[in-house]
Amino acid sequence: MSGAVVVTAVEGVGEVGAGERIGGLIAAGLGRTGVEPRDGDVIVVSQKVVSKAEGRTRELATVEPGPRARKLAGELGRDPRLVELVLAESRRVVRAAAGVLITETHGGWICANAGIDSSNLPTDELVTLLPLDADVSARRIRAELVAHTGTRPGVLIADSFGRPWRIGQADVAIGCAGINALDDWRGRADAHGRALAATVVAVADELAAAADLARTKTSATPAVHVRGAERWWTAEDGPGAAATLQRPEREDLFR
Amino acid sequence: MSGAVVVTAVEGVGEVGAGERIGGLIAAGLGRTGVEPRDGDVIVVSQKVVSKAEGRTRELATVEPGPRARKLAGELGRDPRLVELVLAESRRVVRAAAGVLITETHGGWICANAGIDSSNLPTDELVTLLPLDADVSARRIRAELVAHTGTRPGVLIADSFGRPWRIGQADVAIGCAGINALDDWRGRADAHGRALAATVVAVADELAAAADLARTKTSATPAVHVRGAERWWTAEDGPGAAATLQRPEREDLFR
Repeated sequence: MSGAVVVTAVEGVGEVGAGERIGGLIAAGLGRTGVEPRDGDVIVVSQKVVSKAEGRTRELATVEPGPRARKLAGELGRDPRLVELVLAESRRVVRAAAGVLITETHGGWICANAGIDSSNLPTDELVTLLPLDADVSARRIRAELVAHTGTRPGVLIADSFGRPWRIGQADVAIGCAGINALDDWRGRADAHGRALAATVVAVADELAAAADLARTKTSATPAVHVRGAERWWTAEDGPGAAATLQRPEREDLFR
Repeated sequence: MSGAVVVTAVEGVGEVGAGERIGGLIAAGLGRTGVEPRDGDVIVVSQKVVSKAEGRTRELATVEPGPRARKLAGELGRDPRLVELVLAESRRVVRAAAGVLITETHGGWICANAGIDSSNLPTDELVTLLPLDADVSARRIRAELVAHTGTRPGVLIADSFGRPWRIGQADVAIGCAGINALDDWRGRADAHGRALAATVVAVADELAAAADLARTKTSATPAVHVRGAERWWTAEDGPGAAATLQRPEREDLFR
């Protein structure tokens, strides 16, 4: 029987500017929250704060939409400058209809608007792009946490994605370090001693979803601490989220 | 700042037979686990145990595949008896390719094999179907928990679904009672006082995912207790998961 999984918002991280080291801010926040970090813990960091720290923000006023963006924006009823950014961040359009633009980013994630977002930013004119490589972000934040805390928590970068067929967004992982993103039970025996056929659990996505429950969308709680996920923690950083969670096109029926 | 979310597997519920009252088994399990239930708690129950209790199991040996099932099974390389059951449980086939059969169930859920599953059952020949209406199941289990514990936890029925574009399964909600399945932040102000544009959080799915982290796939831990989700708890049972989480076809781009 496993112990409890405990999910706690890290207090007082607050606003983050370009060039800031998030790991140090989170380490200080853990202290304010009264959490003593340990190896085996997981820190879930929201994409937006990572993007801000990495300077992955754009002023829409500086974007000059091209003909393709203008045409698509007209069809969708969207801001052509936003559509220009989405196309620039994407390797393909998966769906464009009913006001919704779903693309596959250069980093391989399939989501609405290439993950570009304007909420919790000072003006409507400022947007965040996804980190160029959130696995690299996770490894860097982990190294900062090691330096500041002397412990080696796993780090996960989470973003809110919509889903086909289901209403609402749920947080998923777009980057990780020190976490087995997948828990592969295939070949292991079930409670009746029979091999489990098709059970591969997207642990990193479930951790992201769990972390989201401890935050509110209106307050600045960009980091969440998870204890009780030790069985998926690894000392080495590992291959990250993109290499493990992205379904290859040849195995995918929906693009 | 919200408090911690604490997710604990309920011990000793074990195997469940047709006609058993799950609520009573969970109430006893909570005692063994050392959890004192309260209003505001959430109990997440896995679909399989609900299906077993409701007699929603089938022996494949009793299934006679029709011509459509035989043809589709041949194309997919699947057991024609399983395909017959999937078709009988479905109102439409969404995708059938590469050995994968994704359908929309009569209950409105879109998932592989209409949610039919053979893991953690005594033989390969026995499978579970989804509950006919897992919102009804959740309301019944909640009433049993009220009777046995004198408290009124929310109840959520969870199943593991695969996802387009992403490897691995994550647990989602297919039924609930006493939980706001969606947390709608649209119109509320973000940290900068600006209205949040498109943020509707699928809380029930995030709760299901969080609960899955406290279980293992090989042991019988069909129920999980969640504390710290009080802000989504409701005294009344509410509309359930199907009415709130299923995206209407006219708003969906992937069927």
